[in-house]
Formats: sequence, C-alpha cells, structure tokens
Amino acid sequence: MTDGSSDGGVTSVVYQLAAECTVEDIEAGECYTATVNGVVDYGVFVDLSEHVSGLLHESVLPSDYDDEYGVGDELVVELTEIRENGDLGFEVADLDDYEVEERAFSYERAAAGALDGRVGETVHLEGEVVQVKQTGGPTIFRVRDETGAVPCTAFEEAGVRAYPDVDLDAVVHVTGEVEEREGALQVEISSLEALSEGEAAHVRERLAAAVAERSEPADVDPLVEWPAMQELYPDLREVARQLRRTVLESRPIRMRHHADGDGMCASVPVQLALERFIDETHEDAEAKRHLLKRLPSKAPYYEMEDATRDLNFALEDQARHGQKLPLLLMLDNGSTEEDTPAYETLTHYDIPIVVVDHHHPDPEAVDPLVDAHVNPYLHGEDYRVTTGMMCVELARMIDPSLDDELDHVPAVAGISDRSKAEAMSDYLDLARSAGYDDEFLHDVSEALDYEAFWLRYSAGRDLINDVLNVGSDAERHRELVPWLAEKAQRDVDLQLDAAMPHVEHETVDSGAHLYRVDVENYAHRFTYPAPGKTTGEIHDRKVEETGEPVITIGYGPDFAVLRSDGVRMDIPQMVSDLNDEFPGAGVSGGGHLVVGSIRFVNGMREEVLDALVEKMADAEIDEELHSTLTR
Amino acid sequence: MTDGSSDGGVTSVVYQLAAECTVEDIEAGECYTATVNGVVDYGVFVDLSEHVSGLLHESVLPSDYDDEYGVGDELVVELTEIRENGDLGFEVADLDDYEVEERAFSYERAAAGALDGRVGETVHLEGEVVQVKQTGGPTIFRVRDETGAVPCTAFEEAGVRAYPDVDLDAVVHVTGEVEEREGALQVEISSLEALSEGEAAHVRERLAAAVAERSEPADVDPLVEWPAMQELYPDLREVARQLRRTVLESRPIRMRHHADGDGMCASVPVQLALERFIDETHEDAEAKRHLLKRLPSKAPYYEMEDATRDLNFALEDQARHGQKLPLLLMLDNGSTEEDTPAYETLTHYDIPIVVVDHHHPDPEAVDPLVDAHVNPYLHGEDYRVTTGMMCVELARMIDPSLDDELDHVPAVAGISDRSKAEAMSDYLDLARSAGYDDEFLHDVSEALDYEAFWLRYSAGRDLINDVLNVGSDAERHRELVPWLAEKAQRDVDLQLDAAMPHVEHETVDSGAHLYRVDVENYAHRFTYPAPGKTTGEIHDRKVEETGEPVITIGYGPDFAVLRSDGVRMDIPQMVSDLNDEFPGAGVSGGGHLVVGSIRFVNGMREEVLDALVEKMADAEIDEELHSTLTR
Amino acid sequence: MTDGSSDGGVTSVVYQLAAECTVEDIEAGECYTATVNGVVDYGVFVDLSEHVSGLLHESVLPSDYDDEYGVGDELVVELTEIRENGDLGFEVADLDDYEVEERAFSYERAAAGALDGRVGETVHLEGEVVQVKQTGGPTIFRVRDETGAVPCTAFEEAGVRAYPDVDLDAVVHVTGEVEEREGALQVEISSLEALSEGEAAHVRERLAAAVAERSEPADVDPLVEWPAMQELYPDLREVARQLRRTVLESRPIRMRHHADGDGMCASVPVQLALERFIDETHEDAEAKRHLLKRLPSKAPYYEMEDATRDLNFALEDQARHGQKLPLLLMLDNGSTEEDTPAYETLTHYDIPIVVVDHHHPDPEAVDPLVDAHVNPYLHGEDYRVTTGMMCVELARMIDPSLDDELDHVPAVAGISDRSKAEAMSDYLDLARSAGYDDEFLHDVSEALDYEAFWLRYSAGRDLINDVLNVGSDAERHRELVPWLAEKAQRDVDLQLDAAMPHVEHETVDSGAHLYRVDVENYAHRFTYPAPGKTTGEIHDRKVEETGEPVITIGYGPDFAVLRSDGVRMDIPQMVSDLNDEFPGAGVSGGGHLVVGSIRFVNGMREEVLDALVEKMADAEIDEELHSTLTR
Repeated sequence: MTDGSSDGGVTSVVYQLAAECTVEDIEAGECYTATVNGVVDYGVFVDLSEHVSGLLHESVLPSDYDDEYGVGDELVVELTEIRENGDLGFEVADLDDYEVEERAFSYERAAAGALDGRVGETVHLEGEVVQVKQTGGPTIFRVRDETGAVPCTAFEEAGVRAYPDVDLDAVVHVTGEVEEREGALQVEISSLEALSEGEAAHVRERLAAAVAERSEPADVDPLVEWPAMQELYPDLREVARQLRRTVLESRPIRMRHHADGDGMCASVPVQLALERFIDETHEDAEAKRHLLKRLPSKAPYYEMEDATRDLNFALEDQARHGQKLPLLLMLDNGSTEEDTPAYETLTHYDIPIVVVDHHHPDPEAVDPLVDAHVNPYLHGEDYRVTTGMMCVELARMIDPSLDDELDHVPAVAGISDRSKAEAMSDYLDLARSAGYDDEFLHDVSEALDYEAFWLRYSAGRDLINDVLNVGSDAERHRELVPWLAEKAQRDVDLQLDAAMPHVEHETVDSGAHLYRVDVENYAHRFTYPAPGKTTGEIHDRKVEETGEPVITIGYGPDFAVLRSDGVRMDIPQMVSDLNDEFPGAGVSGGGHLVVGSIRFVNGMREEVLDALVEKMADAEIDEELHSTLTR
Repeated sequence: MTDGSSDGGVTSVVYQLAAECTVEDIEAGECYTATVNGVVDYGVFVDLSEHVSGLLHESVLPSDYDDEYGVGDELVVELTEIRENGDLGFEVADLDDYEVEERAFSYERAAAGALDGRVGETVHLEGEVVQVKQTGGPTIFRVRDETGAVPCTAFEEAGVRAYPDVDLDAVVHVTGEVEEREGALQVEISSLEALSEGEAAHVRERLAAAVAERSEPADVDPLVEWPAMQELYPDLREVARQLRRTVLESRPIRMRHHADGDGMCASVPVQLALERFIDETHEDAEAKRHLLKRLPSKAPYYEMEDATRDLNFALEDQARHGQKLPLLLMLDNGSTEEDTPAYETLTHYDIPIVVVDHHHPDPEAVDPLVDAHVNPYLHGEDYRVTTGMMCVELARMIDPSLDDELDHVPAVAGISDRSKAEAMSDYLDLARSAGYDDEFLHDVSEALDYEAFWLRYSAGRDLINDVLNVGSDAERHRELVPWLAEKAQRDVDLQLDAAMPHVEHETVDSGAHLYRVDVENYAHRFTYPAPGKTTGEIHDRKVEETGEPVITIGYGPDFAVLRSDGVRMDIPQMVSDLNDEFPGAGVSGGGHLVVGSIRFVNGMREEVLDALVEKMADAEIDEELHSTLTR
Repeated sequence: MTDGSSDGGVTSVVYQLAAECTVEDIEAGECYTATVNGVVDYGVFVDLSEHVSGLLHESVLPSDYDDEYGVGDELVVELTEIRENGDLGFEVADLDDYEVEERAFSYERAAAGALDGRVGETVHLEGEVVQVKQTGGPTIFRVRDETGAVPCTAFEEAGVRAYPDVDLDAVVHVTGEVEEREGALQVEISSLEALSEGEAAHVRERLAAAVAERSEPADVDPLVEWPAMQELYPDLREVARQLRRTVLESRPIRMRHHADGDGMCASVPVQLALERFIDETHEDAEAKRHLLKRLPSKAPYYEMEDATRDLNFALEDQARHGQKLPLLLMLDNGSTEEDTPAYETLTHYDIPIVVVDHHHPDPEAVDPLVDAHVNPYLHGEDYRVTTGMMCVELARMIDPSLDDELDHVPAVAGISDRSKAEAMSDYLDLARSAGYDDEFLHDVSEALDYEAFWLRYSAGRDLINDVLNVGSDAERHRELVPWLAEKAQRDVDLQLDAAMPHVEHETVDSGAHLYRVDVENYAHRFTYPAPGKTTGEIHDRKVEETGEPVITIGYGPDFAVLRSDGVRMDIPQMVSDLNDEFPGAGVSGGGHLVVGSIRFVNGMREEVLDALVEKMADAEIDEELHSTLTR
C-alpha cells in the first residue's frame, strides 16, 4: 500500500487535519501529515490533530526506527485501518510527489429552524449574521441559515461587545448549547468564528438558493380575467419575490402609501400578507412589529420631510437594535419626478426602493433610483388600473391564503379612484358574490376616506382593517361602515352648505361650465372634508346638476385644486406656461386629464388664478372624459 | 347494604368519576361506575378513575366471579369502606333504577391573591381570563378570581399561542406550579381548561359578588353641607362604584378632561384616587400606568380626532398586550350634543362611557350613548356646581384616604370657573383652614391655566400635581405657585398691552357697553394667553372699569369668543338665527348666558360679526348676571 | 495587664462592639463591654457581640465569683488571648477612668466596579444610592461607590417597595450576594442599612474625592493658537469638569442647542465626547441613552414650551425610573434675557443649568439662574468666537481621544455663522490639512442647515453625524455632503426665483440700499429655506450685486427678519423706540449689529414696518461691518 500512488504523473493528496478534527474526519487509505509524540519499543505514536492519534507499529517501521524518529518530527502517514476498538493503524506513506490540502473539522450542521427538540445539546450552526444587538448583558447575534434564524448569545463582560470583529452580514460557524429562555430558543455561544472567504461563499450560495426557493411567489391567477392586469403580472410577481426575499433576509420593510381609499386598498392587503409571511418564517412573535411598518403619506408624493424621518428612524433602529436598514415600499405613490429628491436621500444609504403606483409616471427620473417600478402607464395602460387592484394581486402572490378575504377590495379601490376600467364590472360582480352590494362598497370607500382624515399620520391598523374588512371581524365591519359613511356624508353636507353659496359660475369659450370657489374662506378649516375633497364634491354635484362639461377650481391662499369632466386638461403644460408668464409666482403642480392641483406663492394668487381660468377656457372638450357617475 | 336503595319509587344516584378524581372525591356508601382491570384468585380489581381503584373481595362476589367478570367490563359498585391504609373496599351495587351523574374532580381552589407562601406547590385556580398576551416565548393568561389576579404562563412553542381556544373573558380552571420570576409570582400552567357553562356561571357569580362587595364606594359625607351637592351624591356614588369595578376587572380607564382649571381640579384628584386603588388591588407596580391614562382635551367637547386616536390606541393595546378595551371617563366635558359623533364611534366597540360635567347638557342626545351622566343641570342645578367640586367628592368615595389632601381643591375649582355658588364661602373657609388664603387660591387657579397652556397635549402628571398640591411636595407647591402666577400675570399684561389700544367701544341700545377686539391681528399668536383667555381678561378689566353691563367680543378669522356681564345671552338662538340669515356662513357654536363662542367660515366674518353685534344690542339686561368679581 | 492603664490622667478606652461584630473586630489587649451569659463551676461566660463570646476562667476571678456574677450582668473585660482553636480568654478589666467607644462591624468593603470575579460571594458595599427603581418584582437600588455603580436588588413582595426608608442619595451599607443576571452583575441584597450621619459623611467625602479626581478634564491645548480662545479656556475647563462630574454621579444631561450649523458643530462633538465618557464609566450599554439627550431648539432662545416639556419628561423619568433630575446644557443658545422665564421654571426643581453661547449675553438676568455661563462677550470678545469653536475644545477636554476627529469642525462652525474671527484662517488651514477644501466645508455648512430643517424637532443623531463627520463613516460623509448641498442650493434657487421679482428697493438717506420683501406672500411656505434663511440669501445676493452698504428686511404677518452689511443696526434701541411710538403693536425682538429679528402683532404691521424703515434710513454706515463674503 505504500507505493501504489507514486507512479505516473499522478500527484497524491496529503491531508493536514484542522486541530479540532476527530475520527469522523478521516478515512482508511488516505494520507495525512502527522507529528511524532512518542517513540516506544513497539512503535511510534503520532498525532494527526488534537483528537486523532495512533501507532505506527514496529512491524511497519524500519528496525532502526528509534534512531530515525524523535518526538516532534513531522512525517506523512497513511491510515491503514480503524480497528473495532477505535485504535488507528498507520504506515509511513511513501509518496514522491504530493500536495498538502487542509481538511476542516467536519461538524454536523444543525438547522437553525429546527432546534426544538435539542435543548441542552451542543450544536453547530453555519449561517449569516442578520442582527447584532448589544444588551446590558450579553451580545446577541441573530444567525440565519437556510432553515431559519436563531438568536445566539455571547457574554464577554456586562454590556461589552463580544466578538467585536464579527459584524452584520458576516458568515459564521457557531458552536454552542441550545437553551430555552423565557420559552424561546437560543444558542449560548461557546465559540463563534467567521468562516474563511471560500467557506463563506459556499454558505452564501446555499442560503441564496434556499432563499430563492422560499421567496418564489405563489402561483395564482388574477381574480378577474383582464388583459391589462395580465400584462402587469410579471412585474408584480417580481415585486412579490423581492418582498418575500426581504422578509426571509430579516430586512425590515417600511411601507409608505397614499392616505386615500385606493392607497388603503393597496397597502392593507399587502400588510396582512407580509405579516402572515413574517409569522410563518420568524420564531419571534414580535417580528412583524419590528419588520413591517405601514405609514400613510398626506402628500401625493414622497416628501423630503417624510424621507428624512424614515431615514432617521432606520438609522436609529440600526444603532439601537442592530437591524438592517429597511426596504422602502411605495404604494399608490412614488412614480413621479417629485418623489426623486427624497429617493436620492435614501440611495446614499443601503435602502432599496420598490414602487407600485398608477399615477402618471416619470420613468426617466424614477427608474435609475429604484429597484422595481410597477405602473400601468409603463405598459400602455393608465390610472384606471388602480394600485389597489394591483396590490390585491400582489398580496395574493405573497400569501395565497388571503384569497377569499380580498374579493371585495378591488371594487372598493376602483370606486375610490373613480376608475372607469372595463374590469370594474367584473370586480363589482366579484364583490357582489362576496356579499357586497354597490351601495355598501361606496360606503366602505367613504368610510376609508373619513377615517384616514381623522387618523392623520397614524396607520390605525386595526381600525382600518375593520373598515376595509381585511383580517377583521366581519360583523363589526358590517355595523361600522354604514355608520361612518353616514357621518362622512353629514360632514360633507355641512361643508357644502357653507361653500355652495359662494361658488362662482361662468360659461367659458369652449362651452364648458367653470366653477370656482375659495375653499379657504368659504369652508371650515381643519375638519373633514379637506379642501381637495370639498372641491371634488362640489364638482360632482355640478356635473350631476348640469350633465354638461364642467371645470371646477377650488382655491386657497397658495394652492388650487382642479377637477374637470368632459374637458381635457393638460396640467403640466399649464404649469409650464404659468411659470413663463409669471416668473415670481413659483408655480408648481401636476395631475392628469381630469384631476390635478397646483401651488403658487400667496401674493400672486389673483394673477395665477385669472391666467389659469383663461387657459381652462381654451381646454378641449372631450366627451370620452365625461363621467357616468356610478352612483 | 345492597338492597336498601331499591325500594319504592326512589331513584338511586350512581356517580361517574371524572378521570382526574382522587379519593378526595369519593365517600363510603356512594355508588360509582367502575371498570374491571384485573381478575385474581382473591377478587376483582376495578378502576373508578385514573387515581381511584380498589378490590371487590371474593367474599362479596359470587363464587363463579372469575367466569362472570372480564377485564374491561363495566359495572356499578358501592364503596363500603376506606381502610386506614387507604385501600378501598367495594361491593357490587344492587340497584334496580338509577341515574348516572358525573362528578367533577374536586380540587382545593387556591386564591390568586394569596399565593405568596406557596412557591413550588402545584395549585388549582378558578377564574376569569382578563388578559391574554403572546410573548416571544410563552403565552401569558392573566387569571382573576375573587381575591386577585395572577399571570399564568403556558408554553407551546416559542411565540406560538398556547390554548388558542381560550380567549379573553373565558372562565377557566388552571392547574400549575407557583413560581417566582424576577421576584413576581406566576403560575406555570400544566393544564388549562375552560369550565363548562354551568360551572362558569357559578364562578362568574362568585366573582361578581366579590367585585360587587369590593367596588362599594367609601361611605363619606360631602366636605361642606350643601343641598345641591347632596342631590348629586347618589349619582356620584354610582360612578365611584363603576370606576372601582372597572379597576377590579382590570379594564383600563381613559380619562379625558377639559384642559382648564376646573378640569384639572376634577381630573387630578380622581386620577390619584384611582392610582391608589389600582396599587391596592393589583400586584404589578406598573399596573397604574397600564390601567389609567389622563388626557387633556383642548376643545370644549370630545373631538372626532381625539376619539379616533383614543380608539386606535385602545385597539393597539388590545392587539399588543391583550388588554380589554377601556372605559372612557369624560370630566368637565362631554355633556353636549357636540360630543355625540365621537361617542358613536366608540359605541361600535365595547367601550363604556361615563360623564361628569357641569356644562349645559343635552341629555336626549347624550344619554342613549353613555353608561352614566352626572350633571347638576339634570337636577335643576347649574354650572355653579363645578366639575372640580363634584370630582373631589368622587375621589373621596373612591379612596377616602385622600380626605385631608383635597380641602383646598373645590375652592380652586370654583375660582377657576368663577362659580358664584352659595357653597363657595364654605369652600373658601375650608381652604383657609387648610392654610390657603384667597390670594394663593387665585394664584393656583392662574398657575393651572398657565401650565395647561404650555403642556399642550401632555398631561404633565407630576408638574400639575405640584401646582395643585395633590399627591405632591407641599413645600415645592408653596414656592412654585406664586412664581407661576406671576409669570402668567406678566404674560397677560404683555398681551393686553398689545390688544387694549385696539379694543373698539360702543354703547348699544340696551345701554350695555359693547367692546370688540380682533384677537388674531392685535394679540400675539401661539403664546399665553390664547384668544379665549385674552378676551376674558379684557372683559374683566372693562367690567371693573365701568361697573356697568358689558359685552365683549374677541374675534379671529373664523371664530368669535363672547363674554357678557349683566346681560343675558342666548347663544343657541343667535347661532340658529345667524344660520338662517347667512346660509353660506357655516355658523356653529354654543355656550350659556354669560360665556360662549361661535365659529363661521373666514369669508363671512364681517357679515356674521355685524349681525351678531346687532343681536347683542337687543340682549336683555339682567342685574342678576352682574358679577361681583371675587378678586 | 490589669493595672497598667489606670495610672496618671490617661483615660482608657473601652469598646462596645456592634451586634454583628466578629473576632475580626477585636484584638488582644483591648477592653470591651461584655454581658454575662452563664456562670459555671470553672468560670464565667461572657458575650461581647452576637458572634463574640468567651470565658473568664475561675483562675482570674475572685473565689466567690459565682456569688458576684449573675446572667445578664454587664462588666468590662480585657481580651488576654486568642487561642489557636479560636477560644478567647478574658480577664476583668481594672480601670478607674474610661470612655466607652462604639466599634462598628468591620467588613471588608468590596468595590462596586470590580465585582467581576466574585459571583456567588457575599460582599459588603458602601456607597450612595443613585437610582431607586420599583419593578413589578424587586426594588432595584443602584449603589455607587468610588469605583463604579452596581444594581442591588431587594425583594419584599412582588411590586412592593423594599426598604421604603432608603431613598435616592442615601448613603448605605449593602450586604448581599453577587449574581449574574442576563449576563450583567448585580447584588442580591440580604441587608441594606442607611449609614449613620458620621459614617455617611466619611463615605461622601471618599466619593467626592474620587469623583473630583475622575472629573478632572483632560489637559489639552487649543487646536489653534488664539488669545481669544485662551481667555475662555478656564471657563470651558470648569464646564468640562462639571459635565464629567455629572456623568460620574449618574445624573442625566439634557442638551438643548440652536438648530443651525454652529449649534450642530457645538453640540455634536460634545454629545460624542459625553457618550464615550459614559460608556467608559457605566457598565450598562444603555446608559448613554438614559443619561444623555440632544434636542434641537427652533427658536433662538429657550422657549417656555420646551422648558415645560423638558421638566415634564424629567419628572416622569424620575417617577418611572427613579432617575435624578437632569442637568440642562444650553449650547449656542441661552445667554439672553429671553431665556430667563424658562430657566426660572427649572430652578424650582433641582436642575442645574450650564450655558455655552456666543450670542450677546445679558449676564445680569442670566447669571443668577445658572451654574456656569461661558460667553466670549463676558471676556471682551464677541460672536466671532462661535459656540462650535468653543465646544470643540470642550469636547476634547471631556474626551481627548476625539482629537483627530474634530479638526474640520471649527471651520464649519465659523462658516455657518459667517465668523470673521482672525483665527478663521488657522481653522481653515487645520481643516485643509485634514483633507477639507473650502468648498467642501461650505457644503457641510449648507448640508447641516438643510438637514436640520427637515429633521424639525428630531436630533437625527446618526444622520447629522454623517453630515458633520463626527463619529461617522467618512466615505458616506464624502458622498452625502455634496449631494445634500446641491439639493439645498436647488431649493434656495427655487425659493429665490419666486421671491426676487417681488423685492422692493430704495436708497435711504444714509446712502445704503434698502431691500424689502414679503416672505410670507412671495415665498413658498413650510419648505426649505424658511423665511429667515430666504431673507439672508436675498441679502447676500444684493450685497454681492451692489458691493455697497445694504439693508434687507424680510417680513411676514407678524415678524420681520433684518440683515445689514456695512450698516450698524441697534436693534434693542429700535425695539424700544417702536414700542414707545406704537403702544399697541407689541413689538419685541433682538439681535446685534448686522442680524436680528423683531415680532409685532399682525394688525400693526404696516405702521411698524414703515417706522422701522425710517430708523434704518438713519442707521450709521460702518465700513468695518462690510462683509468680504468668503465664498
């Protein structure tokens, strides 16, 4: 056995065992580097590692072996046999040409997600550090492998960071004892080491593969057959995949959504789907609170102040809880150029951005800054595919168990945004078969608006769930909605009682009716409905009253809300023209076709409004844009 | 013994023991169902339950008993004796006609409030689940019996809800070991079962009786003899009872009060009384923070926004901490029709409402929505019985140990609301004998106003306690109050320096002086005193200056504050008339006789104010309403 | 041995042992008071303490000793020997004249800061109680001695305050076992007693000496040679000493700073220095969060509302966490008379105030209320020594390890406040040698302003650290700053596009250009830059444009911002004159030489502004005040 491997050009391999290797790591027939640790009258004892040693019997050694070998000498041996009693027999390996290869300690990897029955055992974990939290006592490393994540505690000194070289995202080998603490499992670290680059790459690959598999979205079909939605499906699947992956990687998600009906219909189902997926994949019952936050945005774009606040919170959470920086998920908001300054703040930090919106997008400005951007306009569709409709599909891809609970939501979303999508009748049918008649759906939409107003900057999770009946008590929903809708209507009536007598009318050149009203001076302030909605309600009444093309302008000291029906508005063009005409008016704003708003400086209001009205007078009549109010 | 029970029409009873029954549950002479578990040469062994078994000796059996009985056979036995060594002797029961009755395991109930000396023992508790909290580890059920409440922990899997069928309000039997954890007692559940409906009813009765007894308010007498207060006493006792019961049931209390002097004098003593009662009845030192919250309301009614926020918090606490929804306690606020929309929001949830107020009430609107409504007008009295005066009595009923500490509070309440109650002189005497001279009492009132302003939406518990000297450091109180009063006076002077030169005067038809001032344009904004108080101070100066009937109107862009002296105002009538005259002015508001406020839309200010002044000119002079300023 | 001490006028000492004394507390040759506890046939047994007793052998007693001595008799004995087996031999002491002195139990004091290797041992600690926190379980006393502080837990009953007589600041002797809990050390108290006044005084002295030594600031030299700074150095050292002492005494620090560039440059380095010192001196990793809070102030003085909020938080922390009331540290704010009402609120509580500011001070109003007041004006210097420059030195005194990290900060501070200090060129050189070119320093200044605006009332710790590069990631800093500066510039341009066309110009009598602009009506509201900065930017452009003396007034409904260049303004005088001329205008305000602002009531705006412009027209031209814009 000592010469077979020396022939030809074949290079033999000699293994150098890592110090912690055991007999589990060796095999008869292989060669190893060894160190003499004793020369006795029946042979030579050698050590292969701290735990592996054995004898070269005098019978396989030259007769003058006791002259040849001394303690501490190094040699290459071949393992000839592993006896039943565990003793190892070696020979001197006779190799002309060989390469030494290191052999690592081969521990049996435990699964972080399956330590349940192993309390008291010492286990080995390999994974990525996804959180490092310094407590007043031990340092807690949350280690994730392909099966789950588990907190591992190391104690150096009270409040002192253990293993200061091991940081977030390191790939490590943890040895430690499984413990139960307050009923939750954790591993008390006895050793923690960062893996070598090569080993880490292996682990990362394994993790990536596992994550890739688990982040695969559910294979669902759209709730209704609709080519427009079909077109958006691949984009939505990609977002579903990214959100699931984000959860699996224990990265928090910060969800910002437009605080109106469609925005609620979009965000609430996705919130619920993500909460369930977090529950499913994280041991900690509090995880969904740490990993997911839903935040309403009052403005129709991502304000610099909100972005600064979001970033500030993210950095604090990172500093205090060792959490990763979040992913930002923009819903029913985020597609426009106005969002980009805020996005740019975040891109200087490691914060991915995902947008699902149906407002007229500016992909040239937005796309370079975001990881994903789903918008019907990017597929030749338009705002009639509301964000709520898309996000119901998205939520079902994330958690298909939601299926039955969302049948009424797209219809509410469509009603809220007055969508005239062809699929609306299918969505209404779907809602009807879930027990929702049209009036009740309108009530839900009104109730959402009403509660969003009073909640201001609060998400009002449970309250809104009750109003929308997503993850809620159906009976309370049935009772609550009509009552809220009635209150909302009463407040609208009160507001319009004050405002209506002050609405000014003229018929413009195009033949359209033009109404204007000062909503700052002739409506109650700081109460429901706010100026935008007040203007919308006035407009709707006038459309109904006249049955003809109508333009409505509700204005305050430094803003105007625009609504049109049967008239095509080109707001970006008007803003641009107004800026040329009035250089010191600071006009800005946006919108599309039938709805929009502009801002200006107080002192230029008269000039801007007069010019605006003139432009409106010239706006083209377009019967296609004449709404058939669904109510 | 085998035949005595078979005669006549008497039906015998045979007991079927529950599996967990022990010898404690049986008695010689009774009959039981039994199962054979062994036939030996000296008799037949039978099992009555998991823990009860014994022998039918061959002497009491037929000689061919080994043919007749086989393992698993069921029979009815009579227990003939319990031997000293614990062995049980049975005979076969000879019954013609019997009924089987289940016998439950009769454990000795431990008292949840008296587990102190029993660490390490296994105990049985029977009670109501008053909180279910899922932690990252075990599920915690807080179980309340007639002696107290104790947390019971059950561990299913980390973060997984144990006993998912057992919910808040369930009546349960807990078996478990008493443990001390971080110095607090808890029971580690080994078994938890919901009681049957019948058993649960028994327990509920017992709990109700205990709660009824412990919620009985203290038997106190009013601080001063005063028929008006005597009249309100039964109502106040009822509220005291309900609040004590609420504490005993571990339901949180959310206290909303008018953020003025009288509102503070009302809420602070009740807060302290409830805190002490919570401390007395709850083991957890943090309980008073979880169970009681005092929140100032800026508006003179319960705003929709506040109600939405309150509900949102309540639902979050329920979701996160498994707490019951709270009781809402309205103090010095809540009696009017304007409060009802907010109330209605809460009534869709299980949130009781209790009101103690002295503003002119609208019982028809309010009473159907609330559990209790105490208001002097409902007894033919009026606002002169201030809420602070009532609530000092209420606090004493909740915790009579407060007695000595509140003697000065009714006088402060009366001064703050300029009460001309006949009892004021008694209250002042009472305060004087507690060491408070009149000037100091006025200073306390001013200091309360001043601090309430700067605290905005914070309760400022400790700060306000120091100002009012309720549960506070008397020395600091003595030092702080004059200084704050001085600052307040200085700020009033600064404000009036600006405003006074702009006050416009006319003498109206009735002969009264009418003063008006634009408090938006001629007073500093966002600072103390706010427009309402500024108007009041101007009014007071003018009354003092002229000694004649005076009307003062302080107005801003969309509001007017009204004060009169010696003139009778009918504000509800004026509001109604103004609305008729100016349909697009959106006039609303309220008040009574000498004080009030109205709102309108900005753009109609001139018209509304002019009409208002005309109406004021016609208001009736009434010498009774001429104040003798107490200062 | 029984007579040697009785001669002459020498008074002997007899020790009375404390009950807990052991043989460690006695010594052969000394005399003690003793009590007979047995008379036997070979002698008399006596007790000296609970743990010390021994025999007076018959050989040293009179023969009739059994008549003379009875159980319970007291006598004075001398300890003659301590035998090898531990037995004690006594004689009756023969003293004519002696004094009894109490001898306390002499335990070996453990060091609170060095309990690491002593888990499981019973130790004695002597120190001051610096926190008393009642938990749901035990009471926690944080005890500090000269080596550190350690939590000591006492359990009376769940949630019940143990040792209710021992309060914050008490000096105590703790006996207890050292435990590790969640990795942190604590002592489980077996006995806790307040020391007698004399003993406590000793301990306090020892603590004070240790604190005095450890609070000694580092011995650093100013970053640049500059007589003005040299002059301020002793004052700054005194503040450094007080802040270090405050940390050592575990008293929280609440830092309020002007929310502008210089204020950030002042507060951020001091924050970092204090955080590091807290980390160094406190075991608890959370300590820096509990002991230090940085809060930006929007107003240029300490507003009553902020003070009320600060006090309210402090009182709540005291009530909930048993913390001491904080020290208030005012940076780049706090030197003026306008700060004093807020200070006065705090002085009624035990809240020391320390001010480092460079605004024109009013020492007569401020100094009586504060513990320290550092201001260049108090040394004949002026605002050109910015607070940022001073506080970089202060931070280095607190933690000299910061040295290398702050070289660029004084230059940023100087640029932010447009300081024309002679040392600016040295500071710029220093910054350059740290790799900061002038343009980048300007960008940092602009970026600070921009972020401060969007953060509103948040400190934004990590974000601001990144912008200023103090305790931050240098690479991110390099990337973030130019981008933020560019955004800031773009927003300024947008604002000026709107405002510039509305700027009105006149040349006043003095020959200076006077510009005025309505920044409420001709600038966007609620966005960056705010009115003050907008006015400043307009002013800078006009100065650059004209190269001549310029005055700029930016006004809103109730305020005006004033800037001048080459013209000397005396704002306090103008305010005083305006008040005389317009008694009902409520004019207030301040500033110095070239920058300031005034407030008035809306309704008097026209009159006040016109008068203001007239005064400005008379203001003296002063070429020294003509800026050479550094950019």
